[in-house]
Amino acid sequence: MEKRGYVNAGVWTPEATVEHPEAVRQLHREFLRAGADVMQTFTFYASDDKLQNRGNTCTASEKIGCELINQAACDLAREVANEGDALVAGNICQTPSYMSGLGKEVVQKEFQKQIDVFVKNDVDFLLGELFCYAEEAEWAIEVMKATGKPVAVCLSICSAGDFEGVSLEECAVRIAKAGADIVGINCFYDPDVCLKTMKVMKEALEKAGLKRHLIVQPIGYKTPECLDHHNHASRAGMSGLAEFPFALESRLLNRFDMHRYAREAYNMGIRYIGACCGLEPYHVRAIAEELAEERGKLPPASEKHSLWGDALRQHTYPWVRARARRSHWENLHPTSGRPYSGALRELASQWENLTVSDKTMRQEKTLTTDQEVQELAKRSEAK
Amino acid sequence: MEKRGYVNAGVWTPEATVEHPEAVRQLHREFLRAGADVMQTFTFYASDDKLQNRGNTCTASEKIGCELINQAACDLAREVANEGDALVAGNICQTPSYMSGLGKEVVQKEFQKQIDVFVKNDVDFLLGELFCYAEEAEWAIEVMKATGKPVAVCLSICSAGDFEGVSLEECAVRIAKAGADIVGINCFYDPDVCLKTMKVMKEALEKAGLKRHLIVQPIGYKTPECLDHHNHASRAGMSGLAEFPFALESRLLNRFDMHRYAREAYNMGIRYIGACCGLEPYHVRAIAEELAEERGKLPPASEKHSLWGDALRQHTYPWVRARARRSHWENLHPTSGRPYSGALRELASQWENLTVSDKTMRQEKTLTTDQEVQELAKRSEAK
Amino acid sequence: MEKRGYVNAGVWTPEATVEHPEAVRQLHREFLRAGADVMQTFTFYASDDKLQNRGNTCTASEKIGCELINQAACDLAREVANEGDALVAGNICQTPSYMSGLGKEVVQKEFQKQIDVFVKNDVDFLLGELFCYAEEAEWAIEVMKATGKPVAVCLSICSAGDFEGVSLEECAVRIAKAGADIVGINCFYDPDVCLKTMKVMKEALEKAGLKRHLIVQPIGYKTPECLDHHNHASRAGMSGLAEFPFALESRLLNRFDMHRYAREAYNMGIRYIGACCGLEPYHVRAIAEELAEERGKLPPASEKHSLWGDALRQHTYPWVRARARRSHWENLHPTSGRPYSGALRELASQWENLTVSDKTMRQEKTLTTDQEVQELAKRSEAK
Amino acid sequence: MEKRGYVNAGVWTPEATVEHPEAVRQLHREFLRAGADVMQTFTFYASDDKLQNRGNTCTASEKIGCELINQAACDLAREVANEGDALVAGNICQTPSYMSGLGKEVVQKEFQKQIDVFVKNDVDFLLGELFCYAEEAEWAIEVMKATGKPVAVCLSICSAGDFEGVSLEECAVRIAKAGADIVGINCFYDPDVCLKTMKVMKEALEKAGLKRHLIVQPIGYKTPECLDHHNHASRAGMSGLAEFPFALESRLLNRFDMHRYAREAYNMGIRYIGACCGLEPYHVRAIAEELAEERGKLPPASEKHSLWGDALRQHTYPWVRARARRSHWENLHPTSGRPYSGALRELASQWENLTVSDKTMRQEKTLTTDQEVQELAKRSEAK
Repeated sequence: MEKRGYVNAGVWTPEATVEHPEAVRQLHREFLRAGADVMQTFTFYASDDKLQNRGNTCTASEKIGCELINQAACDLAREVANEGDALVAGNICQTPSYMSGLGKEVVQKEFQKQIDVFVKNDVDFLLGELFCYAEEAEWAIEVMKATGKPVAVCLSICSAGDFEGVSLEECAVRIAKAGADIVGINCFYDPDVCLKTMKVMKEALEKAGLKRHLIVQPIGYKTPECLDHHNHASRAGMSGLAEFPFALESRLLNRFDMHRYAREAYNMGIRYIGACCGLEPYHVRAIAEELAEERGKLPPASEKHSLWGDALRQHTYPWVRARARRSHWENLHPTSGRPYSGALRELASQWENLTVSDKTMRQEKTLTTDQEVQELAKRSEAK
Repeated sequence: MEKRGYVNAGVWTPEATVEHPEAVRQLHREFLRAGADVMQTFTFYASDDKLQNRGNTCTASEKIGCELINQAACDLAREVANEGDALVAGNICQTPSYMSGLGKEVVQKEFQKQIDVFVKNDVDFLLGELFCYAEEAEWAIEVMKATGKPVAVCLSICSAGDFEGVSLEECAVRIAKAGADIVGINCFYDPDVCLKTMKVMKEALEKAGLKRHLIVQPIGYKTPECLDHHNHASRAGMSGLAEFPFALESRLLNRFDMHRYAREAYNMGIRYIGACCGLEPYHVRAIAEELAEERGKLPPASEKHSLWGDALRQHTYPWVRARARRSHWENLHPTSGRPYSGALRELASQWENLTVSDKTMRQEKTLTTDQEVQELAKRSEAK
Repeated sequence: MEKRGYVNAGVWTPEATVEHPEAVRQLHREFLRAGADVMQTFTFYASDDKLQNRGNTCTASEKIGCELINQAACDLAREVANEGDALVAGNICQTPSYMSGLGKEVVQKEFQKQIDVFVKNDVDFLLGELFCYAEEAEWAIEVMKATGKPVAVCLSICSAGDFEGVSLEECAVRIAKAGADIVGINCFYDPDVCLKTMKVMKEALEKAGLKRHLIVQPIGYKTPECLDHHNHASRAGMSGLAEFPFALESRLLNRFDMHRYAREAYNMGIRYIGACCGLEPYHVRAIAEELAEERGKLPPASEKHSLWGDALRQHTYPWVRARARRSHWENLHPTSGRPYSGALRELASQWENLTVSDKTMRQEKTLTTDQEVQELAKRSEAK
Repeated sequence: MEKRGYVNAGVWTPEATVEHPEAVRQLHREFLRAGADVMQTFTFYASDDKLQNRGNTCTASEKIGCELINQAACDLAREVANEGDALVAGNICQTPSYMSGLGKEVVQKEFQKQIDVFVKNDVDFLLGELFCYAEEAEWAIEVMKATGKPVAVCLSICSAGDFEGVSLEECAVRIAKAGADIVGINCFYDPDVCLKTMKVMKEALEKAGLKRHLIVQPIGYKTPECLDHHNHASRAGMSGLAEFPFALESRLLNRFDMHRYAREAYNMGIRYIGACCGLEPYHVRAIAEELAEERGKLPPASEKHSLWGDALRQHTYPWVRARARRSHWENLHPTSGRPYSGALRELASQWENLTVSDKTMRQEKTLTTDQEVQELAKRSEAK
């Protein structure tokens, strides 16, 4: 939605459900056509504290802001889900209130306001995403479980990176014990890194004797730098890359990368195989196409697509028709056309050990000043 | 539209205007919000001969197919244009009839069928794109000029590559003399290559004393390989790259590349600064933002965007806030995350000297067989 | 010596000690000046079976060939060692007799012939290199230990890759138990991979309660592809790279890479910090310079070198003088000037599981025919 | 010689002829074996003003310093030339006296001191290298021509880059008119860039009706960045690359690059096909091997080398034997093993317009201070 002109990068709040419902509806529809089985309400960062914190104009009145946006999102998700046979998931995520240390009661109140809307609209299940702290995830699960609906929870970034002393294994076990029916990870890493991280979590759950469904929702950008030789994921994930968030294009996955991802995730036993930042409808279609046999069907949008470039048989140029075969696409290493660029990038390692207590991690309502940006830049570039 | 699931890659016909009008309308709207001044009817490859050639189901009845699709496209373009103050351009392009050597009368009849619809709908001007042969462009101009409407013409690929003995300079002069009011190039090359090619055309027009407006519509993928040291563009353009059309992601331009393109095009005197394959609404917004002062306004979608990453001042992570400055983005060389890939790729030079008389260039109604694909593959990989 | 014109690549036999002693002497001298504490006799692959196998003209008479070459090597090593205060090590390595399955008696007889020369010349210690099989190393150690001289043994390639069921840990323990005083690894990998492999061996020795000195002799070419995410080294090492052995230049280490290697090896407790294929005198000097404080001296050749580019203060051009500082060189990522090349290369994985029993592994006295080369090429390129 | 430990990088003076004659002799011998037809005296930067300027200890007494070093160089070159049938060329180059503006008389006196030694030793011809200014080259030619010996002159860097208003074409014509019998270019660029530059010079000579032999001596490092789309070479050449001079390894040419270079140079009509910085004996051997038919012989060192990897038929590993064919090496794009590196590097363009009058270009006898280095670094990194 950012690339289509409806979301402000860096702020990421979802007021488009109210401001431009036709754009959100169209995006839902494209994902439905691509084979998505779940319409996730477009309510990421739609908690009141985030909306206010980021100066969103829809939230002049606190109560109306959150309720309006979440209600519009439920309407759109259900409308499109009913065009096929998809489920609707009510979506919440980490809150600035937690990051600012406002305590359990305040944080849960933020969750509750969104969830009240979801319950009123009878969503099929609840999904909590991008929790960087096991504690915040546990608080969210408590609120979600109270609805009686199934609960899926995706950890992210900091937990993956063993943030502040809690290992990824421990996080996985804690949220499973807290009541999550589906456990996994979303955002910040590419499929390769996410699946390696999922393997660690899966083994931790098995070791603890906890049987849970698994969910994974990687981003659509290559992030090989984010995993070290001990399969330990960098805490900052893609946000640690200098390209984030405006120059990630050259890392974008293609449909053949998605085939491989879908197959590997399926083989690991993951059954909620999803998509996070940067992944577009054709990427999701590739997941559905790879698993067409398992699912017993091709997605609607495959009417305009042939597997492995087969439709190129109709191309005007003979050298393009020569690519109408799987081996061409499976063995291709795509080039960047950018000879001044490296393949990998050093992560800003000086930020790796940052803890919540560092003042730069505090959530401020005022904008970062020019001088503060310069100071952060200097710290970012220090060796 | 291919990535959104509505167009078949390799075939590229625009039946979506009839089958999924809401998707086409939404795309028009996003470009309008991004600052586009012209809504081009979604009628590229919407000539009857192309639609039939490619087995399009809309064209069971020849007359209905072409007319329906072009009429729906006019409706959508005008509807969205009227939401702002944009113009509508009726869009035609090269035909398979020409490539198959069917002669002037047959080819002009194909053009006429589309143009009849455009005239009936009173489009603001006519735009002919992707002409690889000066002769076909001249035939198209003759039909377009007869309507009395302004005419823009974009040459492409083969003409840029001096195909079959006609130099790019000569092509430019010929289409200007044939009556094109706006002369330029579209598709097949990135902005760098296109602008270098435009420079050659501009100088040829000036030398011939022909005063014309200029148009350029590059693709959104880096193609530095397509220009040699003599500023001579490879005839095959992006189609000659092994990544075309399904694995071009790693070459995708970012918004900062677009700022540079817009500025350079403007400084060259080009005033129709457009976008072809791969370019999305946010790329067009970057053009409008770069030229905001010249245009006296920002585009609507800039309400969700700040120039040069300024909105990152609101980002949660301090290392991302450090990027809220122009110098970070202007000096960045984005990495690919693909260490097995080169930056450039050898073009399949064995195809470079192919002429129309080669049997592989003939347009066939039957699909290329497996065996033919293997033969083409072998020829493609030969050294 | 291959690059200087005295050794045949692919054959690698050391007849230069007899044919061109001045060239071998000069190389020894350059390494002495660079700070080397050990002159290794130039006798790698100087066993009779290898010399004959490879058609070496010095070995018309079996006895004379081996004896002459090894004797000349001892003379040269001792002569130059005495120009400083270096030690002389008699050098043996893996034999074709072992690879051809000729049994313990035959193999040990080959070792004995070289070692007889070394004992007669009273070398300071014996060094066995590039053993791919623990068994052959044990046989070599038995012969070496019988001389009463200290024994160093370097494993390589296949053992590192857990060849034929024997793990690297087990190999390290077996050769230590067999009597090696110094245990380590040489060839086939860059310093990064070698040090990670050494870590595994060191821990295995410690776990087994075996206290041994450690030796490492990496190659001078970057081989990051040769280590997977489980720190498991590819069996084929650099030989598995398509660039081996004639196009490895772009992977060559620079002097700053060597500083890092020397420091990391030292910090791991390794005290025989050496160099294998591709490393030139200036690379060895960089090791000595990095460890100048620990060694209490700079090497002689440092009279023509200043640390970290300091001598550039005298350069003619101001932009080069700007590089007379450590930070420039420590933070530099050198470019290749080869935009068609990737950073990494896929290893020919189809060869990874090859066992000794595969007929292509048999050592033949006849040259590989054109047809055989084509068959091997086809097998190499298969996916 | 720097890599062998006998020359100080950044200073580059040739006192090794006196201090370590055996090292210089060995290098001459390796080039002779590699097929070199000319032994160039090891006297680059052996003028008194340079030796003193750079604090060389051999030049405590001015007269003795220059004379001793040049005499020793003549002895070594002639000794090795007589081992084969090579010619000896007396080598001079640009002087700091010229750069410091000391005038014609002073500069020619510096040349004369070296040339007196060359004449006394009856060298076969004289070679002036690395002249950045046509004027200095003319002064040098005047002194050289007075000896009656044939004269070869190589321009470099600044002249190639049209320094201070004198175009490369004009430079070529001026030095030919001044009396040079062989005209060309050396140093600072790779073979590709040098040959493109030679083409410009050759055409200028032909246009001026001047018939001269041609010489080219490129460096052994890839420098594609140094040529723009107008075939205009960057003035700073390799010195403008951040890798210069200590981290150029990843740009090093391989023997197959040299085959191509030798063939292209020969086809252009160049008959003095040489080698400058970074090129080792095996590179020169590759030139001689490529031109074996034209020369009617292979060089001596080819006794240890087979064309196009043929000797790999004898390699132990089957996957290496698979590379015993020309097609493997001709089509290979060597990788760098450095995924954090780009293929190309931005040149420090802020230095491009520097003129001699800039104070940083003045030759100083005192060392650049730390503070000056920091100031230059800042200027180098400015955008």
